[in-house]
Amino acid sequence: MNLLGRSLIAGKPGTTGGAVFHALNPATGAALEPAFCEASLPEVDAAVHAAADAFETSRLQPTEARARLLETMAAEIEALGDALLARAQAETGLPLPRLTGERARTCGQLRLFAAVVREGSWVDARIDPALPDRQPLPRPDLRRMLIALGPVAVFGASNFPLAFSVAGGDTASALAAGCPVVVKAHPAHPGTSELVAQAIARALVACGLPAGLFSLVHGGPAIALALVRHPALTAVAFTGSPAAGSALFAAAASRPHPIPVFAEMSGVNPLYLLPEALRERGAAIAAGLVGSFTLGVGQFCTKPGLIFAVRCEATDAFLPLLAAAVRAAPCGTLLTRGIRDAFEATQSAISQVQGLTLLAAADAAPDAGRTEGQPRVAWTTASTFLRQPELVRESFGPFTLVVIGDSPEELLACTRALDGQLTATVHGTAKDLDAAGSLLALLEQKAGRLLINGYPTGVEVSPAMHHGGPSPATTDARFTSVGTAALLRFARPICYQNFPAALLPPALQDGNPLRLMRLVNNVLTRD
Amino acid sequence: MNLLGRSLIAGKPGTTGGAVFHALNPATGAALEPAFCEASLPEVDAAVHAAADAFETSRLQPTEARARLLETMAAEIEALGDALLARAQAETGLPLPRLTGERARTCGQLRLFAAVVREGSWVDARIDPALPDRQPLPRPDLRRMLIALGPVAVFGASNFPLAFSVAGGDTASALAAGCPVVVKAHPAHPGTSELVAQAIARALVACGLPAGLFSLVHGGPAIALALVRHPALTAVAFTGSPAAGSALFAAAASRPHPIPVFAEMSGVNPLYLLPEALRERGAAIAAGLVGSFTLGVGQFCTKPGLIFAVRCEATDAFLPLLAAAVRAAPCGTLLTRGIRDAFEATQSAISQVQGLTLLAAADAAPDAGRTEGQPRVAWTTASTFLRQPELVRESFGPFTLVVIGDSPEELLACTRALDGQLTATVHGTAKDLDAAGSLLALLEQKAGRLLINGYPTGVEVSPAMHHGGPSPATTDARFTSVGTAALLRFARPICYQNFPAALLPPALQDGNPLRLMRLVNNVLTRD
Repeated sequence: MNLLGRSLIAGKPGTTGGAVFHALNPATGAALEPAFCEASLPEVDAAVHAAADAFETSRLQPTEARARLLETMAAEIEALGDALLARAQAETGLPLPRLTGERARTCGQLRLFAAVVREGSWVDARIDPALPDRQPLPRPDLRRMLIALGPVAVFGASNFPLAFSVAGGDTASALAAGCPVVVKAHPAHPGTSELVAQAIARALVACGLPAGLFSLVHGGPAIALALVRHPALTAVAFTGSPAAGSALFAAAASRPHPIPVFAEMSGVNPLYLLPEALRERGAAIAAGLVGSFTLGVGQFCTKPGLIFAVRCEATDAFLPLLAAAVRAAPCGTLLTRGIRDAFEATQSAISQVQGLTLLAAADAAPDAGRTEGQPRVAWTTASTFLRQPELVRESFGPFTLVVIGDSPEELLACTRALDGQLTATVHGTAKDLDAAGSLLALLEQKAGRLLINGYPTGVEVSPAMHHGGPSPATTDARFTSVGTAALLRFARPICYQNFPAALLPPALQDGNPLRLMRLVNNVLTRD
Repeated sequence: MNLLGRSLIAGKPGTTGGAVFHALNPATGAALEPAFCEASLPEVDAAVHAAADAFETSRLQPTEARARLLETMAAEIEALGDALLARAQAETGLPLPRLTGERARTCGQLRLFAAVVREGSWVDARIDPALPDRQPLPRPDLRRMLIALGPVAVFGASNFPLAFSVAGGDTASALAAGCPVVVKAHPAHPGTSELVAQAIARALVACGLPAGLFSLVHGGPAIALALVRHPALTAVAFTGSPAAGSALFAAAASRPHPIPVFAEMSGVNPLYLLPEALRERGAAIAAGLVGSFTLGVGQFCTKPGLIFAVRCEATDAFLPLLAAAVRAAPCGTLLTRGIRDAFEATQSAISQVQGLTLLAAADAAPDAGRTEGQPRVAWTTASTFLRQPELVRESFGPFTLVVIGDSPEELLACTRALDGQLTATVHGTAKDLDAAGSLLALLEQKAGRLLINGYPTGVEVSPAMHHGGPSPATTDARFTSVGTAALLRFARPICYQNFPAALLPPALQDGNPLRLMRLVNNVLTRD
């Protein structure tokens, strides 16, 4: 693999780069070649201007061109072969089977969006034909559909070097909507990012589309802010920490012309264990829960980080099972030393909290040279939890906190104190759930996805998925970053009034040449 | 009519009010009885808390309850009879036929949203059935729909005392989505606001719904900001000036948990006159244009405030026709003295601009005692326009500016310099439009609604309407404040994973008991 160590601005390697950095292999501590150059501010400007120019020249092309681009990107990523997986493994410490699955998800996602674009009904076409004889005033002919916003900035996430990085869900959905993309590469996997960026550039050439539809820039906060503040940018997609996401949101909101920021900033994903379920299958729940909160070494935004149960015999019997499962869990290499240090700092802070007790840690000792995180579980009472809201901070890594309440009402009070979440999960038998109506109703107000008798890690890419939630889980609870609805983030309606047939886009023409499902006279139809 | 001169907090008159003010009749200058009390900060707090409580107890009711509420509101507003129109006329100076039409629009809007809620498919229900045998991993059962956000603040607009005020489009769409509403009354028509608020309160009683679903507060900027910053508020809808809308947006974005603000802040709504159209029907265009920019004394957010034409014989012949039509136009009472003073200040500033010439003013002199505005039209060259971007500021009132370019390319350059707009209009023959492809493509990027051979004033309330546009026309170009799609502003998706049938809301149950159009296995169907 030929890595240049440069940004890629509209298909061309960056030339005026800034600071130099190396990726580190977290499993060995070794610096990886080559060195990478951060982008310069003029390069950021060039990337966004190229995106704006490409948008103007390409946005009125048939949507088939976009579908082919997405499919060609998938093929070009697959054509990178094992070299992509090897580089991703070296940069992230993630195991090869996981990365193989993530590549399949990434390419499947691109092809799914191609299918959505090709089918086309996502543009929500609406036609109100003219009513020239209506009293007291005639109605004009009105036709409305969604069109692309314009250039979008995408921030690669550390924990999904393929599926939520350079050609991940944000890029796929933005391109599907018809928006050019400028990706700010995550500095933990610059080589993986460049390989995928080269694949996208090749796909653009193969499809005969403007190179400006995609750029990749390397850099830190200054580059990120310059990108978000660029006058020609129209939206931002981000997956990462609340601090970084909030900073981008604030920068976008204070622009002369504010733009939307879709920042997915994760949370603690509360999980409730109801008594009869614990009695019936406590051992299975202990195993499932440890599997979920240690999956990916606890570095999923949907990790269940807060477990609620009411004090009872079943809970007393469950805690030793949970402790045993944690003790048996393996340590794992975390994505970066920064994440490891933050995990240990949070664990150290938690250990100082009055009334909070370590329930178990993995028997295996973490290997510092391999940047390992050690699975741990602590517990506390609901009354302690209610007094110390700082306990609900996310600990990114293989840790979860059990909160034991004296009554269902006390757990409801804890739930009321929670901020917005991506997910909330309840384990219960039919009888348990019958008695949990208030809890389920409250959780609808707190989270974007509710699960019964499952685990929140594992996010399906499908039409009915919603990966989002009230602040601070995301900056915009009305949109999802996973699933086919994700492209709705990057579009806005436009209405054509009394347009001659010849000037209407195909989606709104009388004959329905694209065979879309449309709302005609307020009735959904393909006619 | 029994006016209390108080806020209405969850059905009860405010008691701890602040400063006292009177409405003024702009057509006479007379102060109108009774005095009105501004709300106190504790009353704002009580209103939002009552809304949050009412939301929790009512949001899981059948949607039929919401549809009935909207219809009952319409009936109660109609039952106010002529007294409502008389008060509105006294407070706004708007003529009775206009107010009669606006009441019909307001009640029609409420009934239209009732129909949308009753039909129900707006919740965008999506079902991905479980695939237990899928390899490498089974797919869980996923079901997604839109649910209400929570309490919404609505700011009444001065220029639509019924259709965009207390029971206007924002309130109707928020209640339709299932959100409680706290309206901040516009201080120019407090009596009209109270009458409508009492009608809503009666409708809630008649429908057996919690009084907290609606409150009305009087007050100025301090009350507005307290409302927007209230922790239990979840969204804001506003129609008014860029200064006020931007202040609310900034306050909402800087909350610990930011909330969406849908501020419609209008613009200059450019209108392009192409040569052949001017040649063929210059006189008709002059009449239509003057009718549009003086409609409602130029106080519509869709007023065409900027007219572009290329210098040619047809334009030379058109300008005298336009001037004659303006001279013949009547003066009209503006909504408030503040609006009159701002209009005169803008006119005075415009008259100082080098290279800008008054083309005509109405022959009739404005009557200061009747708070009248005098129709005026000025003209300038495209090169002057490009040098002085401050010319594009909206002048709220009966004024429009004609910009004459030397070439179509110069008008394209002017168009590129424009900010986002609600509307853009092109008058042209088929031949004109054939040559205007670049202009039309550019206007799609600048505006939310494009019109051919029409006038942008007059906004249809229908499924295909889009009343919105890129910043600064609105703070969120992705949503409309007029038409059935307006309720999408106040909802967010929620996803249920592996929920037992008994716990699913009716919209997502297997049997489709509500007969909704749903996306099942990625296919739209009522089955």
